[in-house]
Amino acid sequence: MRHTISVLVENKFGVLARVAGLFSGRGYNIESLSVAPTIDPDTSHMTIVTRGEDRVIEQVIKQLNKLVDVIKVSDLTAKNFVEREMVLIKVSSEDEKRSEVLRVVDIFRGRIIDMSNKGFIIEVTGTEDKINAMLTLLKPLGLKEIARTGFVAMMRTDHVQK
Amino acid sequence: MRHTISVLVENKFGVLARVAGLFSGRGYNIESLSVAPTIDPDTSHMTIVTRGEDRVIEQVIKQLNKLVDVIKVSDLTAKNFVEREMVLIKVSSEDEKRSEVLRVVDIFRGRIIDMSNKGFIIEVTGTEDKINAMLTLLKPLGLKEIARTGFVAMMRTDHVQK
Repeated sequence: MRHTISVLVENKFGVLARVAGLFSGRGYNIESLSVAPTIDPDTSHMTIVTRGEDRVIEQVIKQLNKLVDVIKVSDLTAKNFVEREMVLIKVSSEDEKRSEVLRVVDIFRGRIIDMSNKGFIIEVTGTEDKINAMLTLLKPLGLKEIARTGFVAMMRTDHVQK
Repeated sequence: MRHTISVLVENKFGVLARVAGLFSGRGYNIESLSVAPTIDPDTSHMTIVTRGEDRVIEQVIKQLNKLVDVIKVSDLTAKNFVEREMVLIKVSSEDEKRSEVLRVVDIFRGRIIDMSNKGFIIEVTGTEDKINAMLTLLKPLGLKEIARTGFVAMMRTDHVQK
């Protein structure tokens, strides 16, 4: 099963290596991971997407909780959360396909962030399904390269703790 | 100096731990990292942002190139590239501040992706400066939580290799 795990950590060197090591030590691949500072520059927030048996993921989470620099771990999977990723997409289009590319960008509410006579770079955000659907449409139109951020996730505002 | 490093790797477990370990082994903190699959599901693409002396970063890049599962490493820093991150921002707003929050979202071309009577979740993309400027404006308006993807970067289309 696909799990989305949110981990709050101290912003110290070595933490990422230890967290990643916990997964690989058990033979679990991390499908996507993103880590960046929070509002407090002393802490960082990771979002990890992985697939595996619920039982084993539960054990990994227990181990994560035991790491010194880990402040909080939440498995968002069964909860009410929003999840998004951003992708940069490079398309190298022939003249006659350019208008078709632009139509796809428009439909998926993407943005052109770079353009030359050789092609475009498109920025788009969304869920896994949306991004994959867009990539499928762009493939025959000159898709050259992608850079995905991996997912970030957050509990919905219904859960805001005051 | 701030460096943006792009790393193409085999999509195998353990690669992320080894890459992260190379940085922490030298006492270098990774400021942000994002990793996710490319178009080819057998490979993953990482973008790493770190700060350090050019000389030492150069050594880290050489070491990265020696790792078995690393296919290609590029230090984009001095090159002509675009860089973007996405941030989810949770704002828990009092009634009277809601319109002000919406004005900020509008100016920064953000999108509201969740809303309840307790607040909003906003999605916004951009460069480091833009994101930081927006966060500064939202701080007094009920900013509660952020989740940044970390940066992804890509050479501009002028560099498209045909």
